[in-house]
Amino acid sequence: MNDFAFYSPTEFHFGRTATDDMGSALSAAGFKRSLVVYGQGSVKRSGVLDQVKGSLTGAGIDLVELGGVRPNPDVSFVREGIGLVRERELDSVVAVGGGSVIDAAKAIAFGVYYEGDVWDIFAKGLPITRALPIATLVTIPAAGSEASASCVISNDEEGRKVGVGGDAFRPRFAFMNPEHTFSLPPYQTAAGVTDMFAHICERYFSGLGTVTVTDGIATSLMRTLIEHGPRVIEDPEDYEARANIMWVGMLAHNDIAGCGRGLKPGGRAGGWESHGLEHEVSAHFVEVTHGAGLAVIMPNWMRYVWPADPDRFLSYARDVFGIEPIDDTPDAIRDAIEIAIDETQEFFMSLGMPSSLSEFGIGEGDIETLIGTLEKTKGARFGAFRPLDMDDSREIYRMSLMPHEPNVWETEEEHEA
Amino acid sequence: MNDFAFYSPTEFHFGRTATDDMGSALSAAGFKRSLVVYGQGSVKRSGVLDQVKGSLTGAGIDLVELGGVRPNPDVSFVREGIGLVRERELDSVVAVGGGSVIDAAKAIAFGVYYEGDVWDIFAKGLPITRALPIATLVTIPAAGSEASASCVISNDEEGRKVGVGGDAFRPRFAFMNPEHTFSLPPYQTAAGVTDMFAHICERYFSGLGTVTVTDGIATSLMRTLIEHGPRVIEDPEDYEARANIMWVGMLAHNDIAGCGRGLKPGGRAGGWESHGLEHEVSAHFVEVTHGAGLAVIMPNWMRYVWPADPDRFLSYARDVFGIEPIDDTPDAIRDAIEIAIDETQEFFMSLGMPSSLSEFGIGEGDIETLIGTLEKTKGARFGAFRPLDMDDSREIYRMSLMPHEPNVWETEEEHEA
Repeated sequence: MNDFAFYSPTEFHFGRTATDDMGSALSAAGFKRSLVVYGQGSVKRSGVLDQVKGSLTGAGIDLVELGGVRPNPDVSFVREGIGLVRERELDSVVAVGGGSVIDAAKAIAFGVYYEGDVWDIFAKGLPITRALPIATLVTIPAAGSEASASCVISNDEEGRKVGVGGDAFRPRFAFMNPEHTFSLPPYQTAAGVTDMFAHICERYFSGLGTVTVTDGIATSLMRTLIEHGPRVIEDPEDYEARANIMWVGMLAHNDIAGCGRGLKPGGRAGGWESHGLEHEVSAHFVEVTHGAGLAVIMPNWMRYVWPADPDRFLSYARDVFGIEPIDDTPDAIRDAIEIAIDETQEFFMSLGMPSSLSEFGIGEGDIETLIGTLEKTKGARFGAFRPLDMDDSREIYRMSLMPHEPNVWETEEEHEA
Repeated sequence: MNDFAFYSPTEFHFGRTATDDMGSALSAAGFKRSLVVYGQGSVKRSGVLDQVKGSLTGAGIDLVELGGVRPNPDVSFVREGIGLVRERELDSVVAVGGGSVIDAAKAIAFGVYYEGDVWDIFAKGLPITRALPIATLVTIPAAGSEASASCVISNDEEGRKVGVGGDAFRPRFAFMNPEHTFSLPPYQTAAGVTDMFAHICERYFSGLGTVTVTDGIATSLMRTLIEHGPRVIEDPEDYEARANIMWVGMLAHNDIAGCGRGLKPGGRAGGWESHGLEHEVSAHFVEVTHGAGLAVIMPNWMRYVWPADPDRFLSYARDVFGIEPIDDTPDAIRDAIEIAIDETQEFFMSLGMPSSLSEFGIGEGDIETLIGTLEKTKGARFGAFRPLDMDDSREIYRMSLMPHEPNVWETEEEHEA
C-alpha cells in the first residue's frame, strides 16, 4: 500500500427529503448570495429547480441564475459565470444537475480567484488552492463530481477537453434524492453507470499490486453496479436501484476506491488511460456522451493491456464476475481474462451502450485527429498500468471501431470447456 | 435504503511519512496553541511523542502537554484538560494515541464550550454543536475515533461509561503511520481488530434489509480483517497487514459502512447492542479491554438474536465466510448461521481473544451489577435488530460466562454433513 492523503469533506444529504434540507444547511454554512448554475432546462421542466430556489430563498439566500450548461461544457460558459460572480459580488455557487453542470460550477468557483483567463488554469495545469464554496443538487449520477477533486472543461475553439484536480474545489455540500433520477432517459442512465464503473476501474488498474481493503471496496462497488444497473433500465422508478447507483457514483470518484493505489506515494490512483483516450473522442464529436465513449474504449483498452499484468486481471475476473481459470496454463488464464473483459463490455451493452465508435460515424480517417490532440493533452506517453505511446493509442482507437459480437454459448458445458 | 446524512470531513495523511506532515498541515489550518494529549507513556518511550512535538514546534505551534489518559478514560481527566485549555487559552487539541486518548481529547474539545460540568453532556445527552479543532496521530488502530462522531467517557464515581455522538467533534486531521503500530502487543492488536469487526457488525445488523452498496463495503471490510488479522499476530512488522487493518479501523467507524442503514431516516445505523452490553463490563471491570469484552459478548448476542432475522444472518454467513446452507430446510439454515457465528468467535479466539467473561473472574453474582447500570444507561429496552429488555440482557451475559469450545470436524465430509 502506498502512502496517500484522503480528504472528502463534502456533507451529504441523501434521500427523499434531501432537497428540502438545502436552504437551512447552506444558510447555516454562510451562503448568502449564490450563483445557481443549471443545464439545458430539464430541471426547469421537472420542477426541481423551483424546489431548490424555494428552499434557498426561503432561508434568505439571494440567487442569481445562470442556465444553459451543455454536456462537455465549454470554457465560454465558465467565463460568463465568473463575470456574473464578480459583477454581482456573489459568495457561493450552487449547481443543479449532473457532472457537466457541477464541473462548470467548480470552474467558476475557482476561476474567480484567478486574474487571467480561466483557460490558462487548464492549459497550463496551474495549481488551484482556493474556490468559492460549492453546493450541488445532483440530478444525473455519473461523473461523481459532487464529491470529486476533478473538473473537466472543453475548449471548442481549440478542440480540446482538459481535466484538472484539487481538493480546494471539492463541494462543501451534496444533496442527492434518487427520485430526481427517475425521469433520466435509459441512455443517459446507462452512460452514467458506465462512467462510474470506469472511475472504479481506472483506480483498480493503477499498476500497483493488491491493496486488500481498497480493492475490496472497489470490487463491491462494481458488483453493486452490475446488480442494480439492469434494474433501473428495466424499471426507471426502482428507488432502491436508483439509490444504490447514485451512492456508488459518488464513492466511485471521491477517491475512497483508490486509497493506497497511487503510483507515487501521495499520488492519485490510476493512470486514467481510458478517460484520456475517451476525452479526445467526446471533445471532437460532441454528440458522444462521455459514458458511451468509455463503454467502447475501456474494454478495448483492457484487451490491449492485460498481458502487462495478468494477475491483476485474474483478480478482476474472480472478484467482479466470479470467473476462475480452469487451470493455471497460459491458455486458461488468457481465456478467463478475455471472458471477464467480454463480460465487462456485454454488461455495458446490456444497458444499451454502443460497442464501437463506428456507431457514431467515426472511422479510420478520424484517428489521426484524435491522436493529434491526445498527444497535446497527454504527451507522447501516458498512463500507469502499462504506459501507452501514440502507436498504442492508435491501435486501441482502431480496435474500438469494430463492433463487439457477444459470445453465445450453446450450453453451460460448452461455456466451461 | 433509508435517508441518511454522511459527513466525514477529516483530512487523512496515511503512510510512512504521515507524522512529518503534521506541523505544516496544522499550521496551515490555523492551529497556534495546542493541547497535546497522550496516554500512559508508550508514545514517550517509542519516541513518537518527540517526533510529533518536533514537527509541531518546528511549524511554530505552541504546545501544552497533558499525559496520563488511561484506557476507559475517566471524566476527571477531561475536567483537567478543559481547565488547562481555558487557563492557557489554547485553540486546538492534538491527540497522540489510541481511542481512549482521542476520546478524552474530543471531550476536552467540546467540553470547553459548556459552562457547567462536562459530565452533564454525557449524563443528560446534551447536543454538541461546537468543538475546538482536533488533530490525531493514531498509534492504536481500534476505536476508529480518528474519524468518528463518537466519544465514550467513563465516570468511576458513578461506575458508568457513556457515549455521545456529534459531527461537530469529528477530528479535522488524522495522521496514520502503520509503522507506529509495529510495537503494539498482540493482545491489544487483537482487541483492536475485534473492536473494528464489531463496529461493522453493529451497523450491518441494524434491523434493516439489504442495502447493497453499503453491505458490500461492510462485508469487504470484514473479510479484510479476517485476512490480515492473523498476519499481524504472526508478524507484528508486516507493513501491508498493519496498513490494511489501520485503514479498516477508520472505515469501520466513520459511518461509511452504515450509510442508508439507519433505522429512522437520517438516523445512525445500528442498535449497538453488543457495545451497550460490553460497556457495562469494562465500566465495572476496568481491566477488561473493550475489544476483549466484545469478543465474548458479540458472538453470544448473535446466538441470542439471529432467529429474529435469519435471512440477514444467512447473508452474513455467505458474504463474510462463504458459508451456504446445504438446502433450504430450517435445520440447514440454522446450521449455516450457527457455523458462521462460531467462525466469528473462533476468528477472535484465533487472534488471542477470550471466549468467556469468566476468564476475567466475572461470575453469575456480577450479572445484576451489570444489569443495574445497563438499565440506567440504555433504558429498560434498547437495540434495533431485536430490541433487548433486561431479561434478554441477563441471558446474554449468562451465555457469555461459558467458554466456547471450537468445533473440531473429523473430516471434511463430516463437516458438510
